[in-house]
Amino acid sequence: MSSTWGEKIKISIFGESHGAAIGVVLDGLPAGEELDFDAIALQMSRRAPGKDATATPRKESDLPNIVSGVLNGRTTGAPLCALMENTNTKSGDYENLKRIPRPGHADYPAYLRYGGFNDVRGGGHFSGRLTAPLVFAGAVCRQILQRRGIRIGSHVYSVSDCKDTPFSPSDIPEDLLQKLSSVPFPVINRDAEQAMRDTIEKARMAQDSVGGVIECALTGVPAGIGGPLFGGIEPVFSSILFGIPAVKGVEFGAGFGAAELYGSENNDAYYYEDGTVKTRTNNAGGILGGITTGMPIVFRAAFKPTPSIAREQDSIDLTAKTDAKLHVHGRHDPCIVSRAAPVVEAAAAIALINLMNL
Amino acid sequence: MSSTWGEKIKISIFGESHGAAIGVVLDGLPAGEELDFDAIALQMSRRAPGKDATATPRKESDLPNIVSGVLNGRTTGAPLCALMENTNTKSGDYENLKRIPRPGHADYPAYLRYGGFNDVRGGGHFSGRLTAPLVFAGAVCRQILQRRGIRIGSHVYSVSDCKDTPFSPSDIPEDLLQKLSSVPFPVINRDAEQAMRDTIEKARMAQDSVGGVIECALTGVPAGIGGPLFGGIEPVFSSILFGIPAVKGVEFGAGFGAAELYGSENNDAYYYEDGTVKTRTNNAGGILGGITTGMPIVFRAAFKPTPSIAREQDSIDLTAKTDAKLHVHGRHDPCIVSRAAPVVEAAAAIALINLMNL
Amino acid sequence: MSSTWGEKIKISIFGESHGAAIGVVLDGLPAGEELDFDAIALQMSRRAPGKDATATPRKESDLPNIVSGVLNGRTTGAPLCALMENTNTKSGDYENLKRIPRPGHADYPAYLRYGGFNDVRGGGHFSGRLTAPLVFAGAVCRQILQRRGIRIGSHVYSVSDCKDTPFSPSDIPEDLLQKLSSVPFPVINRDAEQAMRDTIEKARMAQDSVGGVIECALTGVPAGIGGPLFGGIEPVFSSILFGIPAVKGVEFGAGFGAAELYGSENNDAYYYEDGTVKTRTNNAGGILGGITTGMPIVFRAAFKPTPSIAREQDSIDLTAKTDAKLHVHGRHDPCIVSRAAPVVEAAAAIALINLMNL
Amino acid sequence: MSSTWGEKIKISIFGESHGAAIGVVLDGLPAGEELDFDAIALQMSRRAPGKDATATPRKESDLPNIVSGVLNGRTTGAPLCALMENTNTKSGDYENLKRIPRPGHADYPAYLRYGGFNDVRGGGHFSGRLTAPLVFAGAVCRQILQRRGIRIGSHVYSVSDCKDTPFSPSDIPEDLLQKLSSVPFPVINRDAEQAMRDTIEKARMAQDSVGGVIECALTGVPAGIGGPLFGGIEPVFSSILFGIPAVKGVEFGAGFGAAELYGSENNDAYYYEDGTVKTRTNNAGGILGGITTGMPIVFRAAFKPTPSIAREQDSIDLTAKTDAKLHVHGRHDPCIVSRAAPVVEAAAAIALINLMNL
Repeated sequence: MSSTWGEKIKISIFGESHGAAIGVVLDGLPAGEELDFDAIALQMSRRAPGKDATATPRKESDLPNIVSGVLNGRTTGAPLCALMENTNTKSGDYENLKRIPRPGHADYPAYLRYGGFNDVRGGGHFSGRLTAPLVFAGAVCRQILQRRGIRIGSHVYSVSDCKDTPFSPSDIPEDLLQKLSSVPFPVINRDAEQAMRDTIEKARMAQDSVGGVIECALTGVPAGIGGPLFGGIEPVFSSILFGIPAVKGVEFGAGFGAAELYGSENNDAYYYEDGTVKTRTNNAGGILGGITTGMPIVFRAAFKPTPSIAREQDSIDLTAKTDAKLHVHGRHDPCIVSRAAPVVEAAAAIALINLMNL
Repeated sequence: MSSTWGEKIKISIFGESHGAAIGVVLDGLPAGEELDFDAIALQMSRRAPGKDATATPRKESDLPNIVSGVLNGRTTGAPLCALMENTNTKSGDYENLKRIPRPGHADYPAYLRYGGFNDVRGGGHFSGRLTAPLVFAGAVCRQILQRRGIRIGSHVYSVSDCKDTPFSPSDIPEDLLQKLSSVPFPVINRDAEQAMRDTIEKARMAQDSVGGVIECALTGVPAGIGGPLFGGIEPVFSSILFGIPAVKGVEFGAGFGAAELYGSENNDAYYYEDGTVKTRTNNAGGILGGITTGMPIVFRAAFKPTPSIAREQDSIDLTAKTDAKLHVHGRHDPCIVSRAAPVVEAAAAIALINLMNL
Repeated sequence: MSSTWGEKIKISIFGESHGAAIGVVLDGLPAGEELDFDAIALQMSRRAPGKDATATPRKESDLPNIVSGVLNGRTTGAPLCALMENTNTKSGDYENLKRIPRPGHADYPAYLRYGGFNDVRGGGHFSGRLTAPLVFAGAVCRQILQRRGIRIGSHVYSVSDCKDTPFSPSDIPEDLLQKLSSVPFPVINRDAEQAMRDTIEKARMAQDSVGGVIECALTGVPAGIGGPLFGGIEPVFSSILFGIPAVKGVEFGAGFGAAELYGSENNDAYYYEDGTVKTRTNNAGGILGGITTGMPIVFRAAFKPTPSIAREQDSIDLTAKTDAKLHVHGRHDPCIVSRAAPVVEAAAAIALINLMNL
Repeated sequence: MSSTWGEKIKISIFGESHGAAIGVVLDGLPAGEELDFDAIALQMSRRAPGKDATATPRKESDLPNIVSGVLNGRTTGAPLCALMENTNTKSGDYENLKRIPRPGHADYPAYLRYGGFNDVRGGGHFSGRLTAPLVFAGAVCRQILQRRGIRIGSHVYSVSDCKDTPFSPSDIPEDLLQKLSSVPFPVINRDAEQAMRDTIEKARMAQDSVGGVIECALTGVPAGIGGPLFGGIEPVFSSILFGIPAVKGVEFGAGFGAAELYGSENNDAYYYEDGTVKTRTNNAGGILGGITTGMPIVFRAAFKPTPSIAREQDSIDLTAKTDAKLHVHGRHDPCIVSRAAPVVEAAAAIALINLMNL
C-alpha cells in the first residue's frame, strides 16, 4: 500500500513537488523489451502543464532520467528507476498552509496523518506532479502491451456539463485510440472540445475551476484475463485509478447507468462474427465475473474540480483554533481533466500488465 | 489477489455455490475481541435469500460454523475460519452452461480462464453466494470497529429510477446507521421503499430484473487514516467493493457529480464547531488526499441488474460455434440490491480495519 | 504475513490443536490438475504421529476433507480448502501453561503477544499439528510439479550426532527421491537409521528428546528460476521453511560449510555433458544469484529437540512472579525429525511452485 | 518479491553496478524521525571497499544523495529515495562473461533468466554493490529502532576456520554492540582478528578467497514481537538475510548446533531477575514460536567465499558449447565477510522494524 502498487510489476513512486526530484521504480519488467523514448516523451508531454492545443511533444524539465534497468535501449529485467528533476520550484510561504488548510486539499488530513512533518510545499507528495512518474511507468508498460496487440486510448468524456461523444459500444477502431492517445486534449467530437474549452475559460475568468470525466478503452485484450472476487479487472484497475489525485468515481461499462437498466437491457447478447465471440452491446465494459470477455475494456474516471482556486474561501486557523478566510495565490489550472487523460491511460496499462502472463 | 484480500487483516474466501461448503479465513485479527454472535447472525440474515420485509433474524443454513480462532467467545489472535454449509443445492443440467453461456454472467470468460475445469453449478466460485463469507468477515470486523466508536450503515439509494433520500451531508446520526444496518431493506424514506418494491415486482412479473445503488456511510472514523496515492481510502475501499459480484461503479462523496461542479461549489469549507474541525458540505465523502478528514466517509456502489432472467435471450453455442437461444430456468432474484446492503457494509468494515492501527 | 504465505499460490493455514478442525486454503492453483488422493494420503501419513518402521499409509483422522476447489478429481482454479478434524483432543488443565510456561515452547511469548487470549490447549495455533495442512498443501503442489518433471525428496541427515550419508553432489537419482519421499523414516544408509533409532530410544528412556537435520533435494528444476535479492530461491524457500515450528537453521548447498572453504574449492566448475551444462560439484545447492542453475536444489533444515520433555524443568510462575518447577505430563515424541521430512518436502514444493510460471 | 521487500516499511532496491546510479526507496517510514547523517555515513563507510583497519568514516562516492522523503533533517512520512552514483566504473570486455560464465557467479543462470539482456558489467544488479542501498535503508531503520531502545551489532564470527569468541548467551552489553557496529572489522577477541587477517592475506597471495560467518545480536527488543508460522521472526529475518548476495546459511540461537542437543540441554530455563523474565541460556536466540522472548535476538549468516578469484578456473563456452578455461582479471576482495557485517545489521534492522507497531 501507500505509494507502492502491483504484484507482478511493482511500481514504487517517490518524491515531493518541491523536493530535489520525483521518480518511480518499476520492479518485475520482462527483460529485452525495447523502449521507444519518443513515445515516452510524448506521454510525459501530454501530462505536462502549460501545454495546449498542440500535439508536438517538446522537451521539458520532467523528461525522465533513466537511472537503471535499461541497457542499449532495452529493459534488462532489473528494476527500472527513472527520475524527473524538480525545477522552477519557488517555495513561498508554505508554512501558512499548515495553519490555514486549503479546502478540498490534503493539507488538513495530511497534517494530522504526519504530525505536521510532511512537506507541504507545492502539495508535497500529494501534488498532482506525482502523476508524472505514473505516466512514465505507464508509458513503459503500454509499449510492452502494444507489442502484444493491446491498444489504450482515452478521451475527455465531459467537462462540467459539456459532453463528448462516448466510445461506440460495438466498434472502437485502433487508429482512433492511436490518435486520441497522442494529443493533449483528446476528444472524439471536435465540437465538444470547443464547448469544453469555453467552459474552462469561463471558470478561469471567474477565478474558479471545473471537473470532468475521462473515458478510457483498451482493445485487443485477450478474453480470459482476470479472476473472481478481488483478483478481477475492476478491483485491480480501480485500486490504481483511485490512487490518481482528484479521482472520486470509477465505473466500468454502463457503470452507474447499469443500475437504472433492466436485466434484459443490460445483458450483452453474444453472437459469432467470423468465428469470433462478440457481444452486440458492451454494457459489461468487456468484463464479466472480473474476467475479460474479449470485447474492449471501457471505463470512466471522474475528476473533481481542482481545489486550488483564486477566490477567497472559508477555512480555519489551526493555530488560533478559529474560523479564517483563505486566499490562495499563484496560477492554477482551471481544469486538469485533459492532462489527466494520459495519467488514466498509464494507470490502465500498469493495471492490465499486472494481470497478464507475459 | 484473486480471492484473498488485505494486508493487516487478510481474508481468504473459498467455496463454490454447489460444493460442500463456502467459507472464509481471517488472518491478523486482534486477540481478545468478544464476538456478538447474534449480531453476526443478523448480518448473515440480511444477506440471505428469501427474506423480506421482516427484520427478524431467523436461523438458517448459512449460519456460520466457526472452526478456529475463537475461544470462550473471544478471538484468540490465530486465524479465524468460518464455514457455511451448502444445502438445498439441486444441481441440474449445468453442462449446458458450458455450451450456451448466459449473457451477463461469468460463464464464457470463466470457461476460457479455467479451460473448462471450473465448477459451473450455481455459478461456482462466481456465485453471489460467495458474499456470505464476506458478510461474515465484515460482521466480525464491524464489531471491532464499533467498539472503537465507528458506526457503519447503508441504504438502498436507488432501484432503477426510484431514489431514496440521500444521506445528509451535515449530519448522519448514529441511530440512523444503527437502524439501517439491522433491517433487510434499508431506506431512509419509507415512500421510496414502496416505489422500489413496486418496480421490483413489475420486473419480476416481466421475467426481468433491475439494478440499483447502495449508499454507505461510516461515522466516528478518526481524521488522519489512510495515505496518498495507492494507500488512500478510495483505492483500498474500491479494491474490495469492486470484488463484490455485480458492482460496476464506485464513487466517494459527490463522486461523478463532482465532475459537474465548480471548484467553488465542490470544495468543502472548514469551520470549527465546539472545537472540532468540520466541513459544511461533504462533497469529499470524508476523504482528502486519500486520508480521512473526520467527517463521515460516504460512498456509493452501483449494482447491475441480476443477469439471470427468465425470458429468452440471444447467446451462442460454443460447441456448434453458432448463435443460439438461451432460456434460463429456475427462480431468480429480480433485484439483489437490498440484499447487497450488508455486503457493502461488510466490505467497508474490512477495508477500514485494514487501514487502522488497532 | 502470519499464517498466510505466497504470492502466485497463496496458502492460508488455520486452526488450533484442540479446536474443531485445522486446515488450509490454497488460492491460485492452476485449473484442471488431476489430484492423486492416495499420494496425498501417503504424505499425510508420513507426518502423522504414532507411525513407525512401516511405510503402509493407513487411514487416519487427519485425512483431509476437501471443501472446495476440486470437482471430478481435478482442481477448478477456485480456492481449494481442506479441513482436518481434531479428534482425541483431551484438553486437561491447560490453564497451568499460562501460569508456568514450558521452556522452549511458545507459551510465554504467545501469552504476551496475545494478551493471554490465545488458545493454549495442545499448543493451540503454535502446535506442530499445524504442519498437517502444510503437508496437504505441499502434496497438492508436489503433484503439479511432478507432472512437469520435478521430483522432491528428503532424508534424515542427522539425529543428534548420528549422521546419514549426504546426497551425492553429482547424482541424485529420481528413484532415490521417489523412495525416500514415500517412507516414514527416510535415510540413504540403513545403518545410520539404526543408530538414529537407538539414540532416540535412549532419549525417550531418559525422559528427554533429540533434534536433527533434514536434507532435501529437488531434481528436474529448470535452470533460470528465481531472481536477485529478495526474489531468489534462498529467501523464498527460507521464508516458508523457517515457518515450520522447531526449525532454527537453514542452509543451501555447502551452506555453513562454504564459509570454511576457499573460493577455489567452493566454486562449482562448469562442464558440458551430452550438450547439457552441469557442474562437477554442487556447493551452490543448485542456486547462483538466487537463480536455479539446473543442478539439483539441495538444502538442509535444522530442527531443535522437542521442547516437551517429561523430566522436571526450571520455569517461572507468572502469577506469583517467582521461580517455579515444571513437570510436563503426557506422552511426547522424543524426536520429531523423521516426521518433519514430509513437512520440509511440502514447504519446498510450495516455495518452488510460487517461483515458476505454470 | 524480486528487489522489493517488506510490508509495513517497503524497500525497493534498484541499480546496476556499472549503471548511472544505484539506490533505494523506503515507503512507509514514520514521519518526524530525525536522521543522523553521520551515523548513516558511518555505516556506508563500513561497507565500502578499500577500507581497512581504520574506523574513521571517510567521505566517498557512495555517500547517499537523498532525493525525497526528508525535510529539515526529518522524515516526512512520504517515500524516502536515496541515490548513490556509480563512479570509477571501467567496463572492460564484459561480453566475454556472457560467453564464458564465471563459476560461482550468477552469470550463467542470469543469462538464462533474462535471455541475455541483463547488464553483466560488474555483475549488474547481482553485484555486491547493491548492498550499499540496503545498508543505507538499514541505517535509517536502525536509528528509529535505537530511539526505542533497540541496539544492533554484529561481529566476524569466523573467517575460514578462524573463530572469534561468540556472543555471551547471558549478557550482551549495549556498549559492546555500539562499538562493534561502528568499526570496519568488528571482532570481540582481537587475537581472532589477527588470525583472520592472516588467513585472508594468505588467500590473497594464493589468488584465492575465503568465506566466513557473521554473528549478529539485537538487544532491547520487547518480548511479544512476531507471530506463528510465516509471520515469525525467523522467516521474516531469513527472507531478507538470504537476499544478501553470498549468504548460503542462516541460523538462530543454537541453530544447527541445536540439532545435536538433547531437549534438556536446549530448553532455556526461565527465571526472574529483578522482576524481569529471563532465560539462563539463550539457545532460542531470543525467539520461541516465532515471537521474541525479551532475550537478545541472536543469529548467524554464512557467507561463501567470493567467487571472483584470479586463478584459472574450469568453465564452459556457451557459444561454442565446449568446455573452456576462464581467467578473471581485475582486483577482487579476497574476503568480503567484514564488509558484510553492516549489511547483516542493516537487514536485521529492516526486518525488525517491519514486525513492530511503531
